[in-house]
Amino acid sequence: MSEETRQHIIRTGADIIHRNGFNNTGIMEILKASGVPKGSFYYYFESKEAFGVEVARYFADHFAEQVAHIMNDAGIAPVDRLKMFFGYFKKYFESEGWSRGCPIGNLAQEMGDLSEKLQAELAMIFERMGRSLAAVIAEGQQQGQIAEDLDPYDTAVFIISAWHGAIVQMKVRKSSQPLDIFEKSIFESFLQK
Amino acid sequence: MSEETRQHIIRTGADIIHRNGFNNTGIMEILKASGVPKGSFYYYFESKEAFGVEVARYFADHFAEQVAHIMNDAGIAPVDRLKMFFGYFKKYFESEGWSRGCPIGNLAQEMGDLSEKLQAELAMIFERMGRSLAAVIAEGQQQGQIAEDLDPYDTAVFIISAWHGAIVQMKVRKSSQPLDIFEKSIFESFLQK
Repeated sequence: MSEETRQHIIRTGADIIHRNGFNNTGIMEILKASGVPKGSFYYYFESKEAFGVEVARYFADHFAEQVAHIMNDAGIAPVDRLKMFFGYFKKYFESEGWSRGCPIGNLAQEMGDLSEKLQAELAMIFERMGRSLAAVIAEGQQQGQIAEDLDPYDTAVFIISAWHGAIVQMKVRKSSQPLDIFEKSIFESFLQK
Repeated sequence: MSEETRQHIIRTGADIIHRNGFNNTGIMEILKASGVPKGSFYYYFESKEAFGVEVARYFADHFAEQVAHIMNDAGIAPVDRLKMFFGYFKKYFESEGWSRGCPIGNLAQEMGDLSEKLQAELAMIFERMGRSLAAVIAEGQQQGQIAEDLDPYDTAVFIISAWHGAIVQMKVRKSSQPLDIFEKSIFESFLQK
């Protein structure tokens, strides 16, 4: 019983939950896929809810890491960083046949009313996402690339909403169309004006 | 066994699913809440999946009916109709303590990858929603209220995305903030320019 095993269970469970949903994924299924003995779940996690919080943290950290090299590269123009950020995930969704969606958005929708712990954790994750995007937007304004009359934080919250909703439409339309329209609307219109 | 009972089971199930999610709601729970004898579910519905399709249709029809008097009133300026449309649902979400979210968005996120029948039905519902909003946007353009360079259909798809994502953020932030920012961004900025 080790921290390594604990992390392995989180990663394995996160992948199944990303594919099938939180309520639709059983603890036994996660343990079986992890190759961990039955009954050891509660040694590592207090409850399925506590496990869900760990999964949400894992996803947030994992995705933030994947795009950190883009978001923190002061050598790339702020608007291009935003384009690369959304482009990175679009490529991922394409590789998955326009399925799965954003695991943070999925958990928010599915568990926002059912678990106060998950709700609070996800609210923090959305807030961090908003602050992080707002910083790049403010940079873009300073460099004259983004309309000055937009509030950076509100604009970030709005863009995150528009992106998550586009991902949900992508998931049922099974095409890039909602994401293409999102990019066009944000970059050719909303941020420009 | 009547069509009335069938509709009663759909309405009752729809309410529970809207609150707790599709995978998290059992057939027994729906029958119990409906006051319908155990075992009669499969008399009315082929499967839980087929029931889900009925629930999605019920929600789409139910919400379309609720806002039809707004959306079809040529006496109200197109932009005001859009504001009233989103205002109507915001009031509803407020009355629910910023919970539940949009049942169509919820089902799309939860079932988009798990059921081809639900995915196809929800894609049609999103498409109808888009066409309906696009018509009002085009009217607004003809009346000079909405920027002419926007494509009405793409703008409708984008607004629906931004709204659904705002509803997801609302659900974890438990506040009107994402919806307020959505309205401000769309009406004071995006459609104006």
